[in-house]
Amino acid sequence: MNSPDTLQITAVPGTQNIEMTREFNATREQLLRAHTDPELFAKWCGPNGYDMEVTRFEPHHGGAYAYTHRSPEGDEYGFRGVFHGDPSVDGFSQTFEFLGAPGVAFETLSFEDLGGGRTLLRAVSIAPSVEARDAMVESGMEHGIRESYDKLDEVLATS
Amino acid sequence: MNSPDTLQITAVPGTQNIEMTREFNATREQLLRAHTDPELFAKWCGPNGYDMEVTRFEPHHGGAYAYTHRSPEGDEYGFRGVFHGDPSVDGFSQTFEFLGAPGVAFETLSFEDLGGGRTLLRAVSIAPSVEARDAMVESGMEHGIRESYDKLDEVLATS
Repeated sequence: MNSPDTLQITAVPGTQNIEMTREFNATREQLLRAHTDPELFAKWCGPNGYDMEVTRFEPHHGGAYAYTHRSPEGDEYGFRGVFHGDPSVDGFSQTFEFLGAPGVAFETLSFEDLGGGRTLLRAVSIAPSVEARDAMVESGMEHGIRESYDKLDEVLATS
Repeated sequence: MNSPDTLQITAVPGTQNIEMTREFNATREQLLRAHTDPELFAKWCGPNGYDMEVTRFEPHHGGAYAYTHRSPEGDEYGFRGVFHGDPSVDGFSQTFEFLGAPGVAFETLSFEDLGGGRTLLRAVSIAPSVEARDAMVESGMEHGIRESYDKLDEVLATS
């Protein structure tokens, strides 16, 4: 059974942060695996209908990741970052860069046990400035994240 | 000849950032080398009178660094982070964690050519929150940075 869509994305007032929460019908261990196994990650990260190519994925302190989303029209969107700290069932931190746009964000994802096999994913993304944060929110990120997490529901239900 | 001490540290109002500028009597290439050669880095980074041990230093995208400052009384202060992007004469970006304190900052250092063999170092450090930023500023960071950059003057004059 999929989770009801509980996605909330907030541009936290008085900060340059975006906070995002989403509940999943899965354990913290399952969420950790879906974020650190490149084959699982490629199955859910990105908007519907996009090709996803993971070119680097080293989920440990000092490791890097890189991937490209390719739209049905053939447009490419590249992303890269590095992991700070080793991922665990508590969560992980990473840098996040959308290639072609200025600025790098620092993200911390945490997995919180809600009991009953459910987990709250909380992500805090720190932008370089309020303006960069607002541009991220207004870029339509919510649509891609909502579709990604709907796919993650499916991955979690079958993995 | 050392630079006059032009250090300025600013908690930028309306942000969770610290901006720091300092001029040096050196080229961008010299500043890049002093920040990416671990032997040179160990000579200047840290307060006066502290031992400095660099245990990891991989100045490239996805590389990590770690070092420990040891006070004359034997107290140890550990730091670690990862590099995002490859350092160049334009500067570099990295995460920065003071072990034992919560939160990770994301720092971007840029080297700006002032002409006449002088360079402006500009560092922007993005804290997880305004409170974390203010705690960093009030921790006495300015003293250690001022002493570090005075030592960097010496390293640049002799390297």
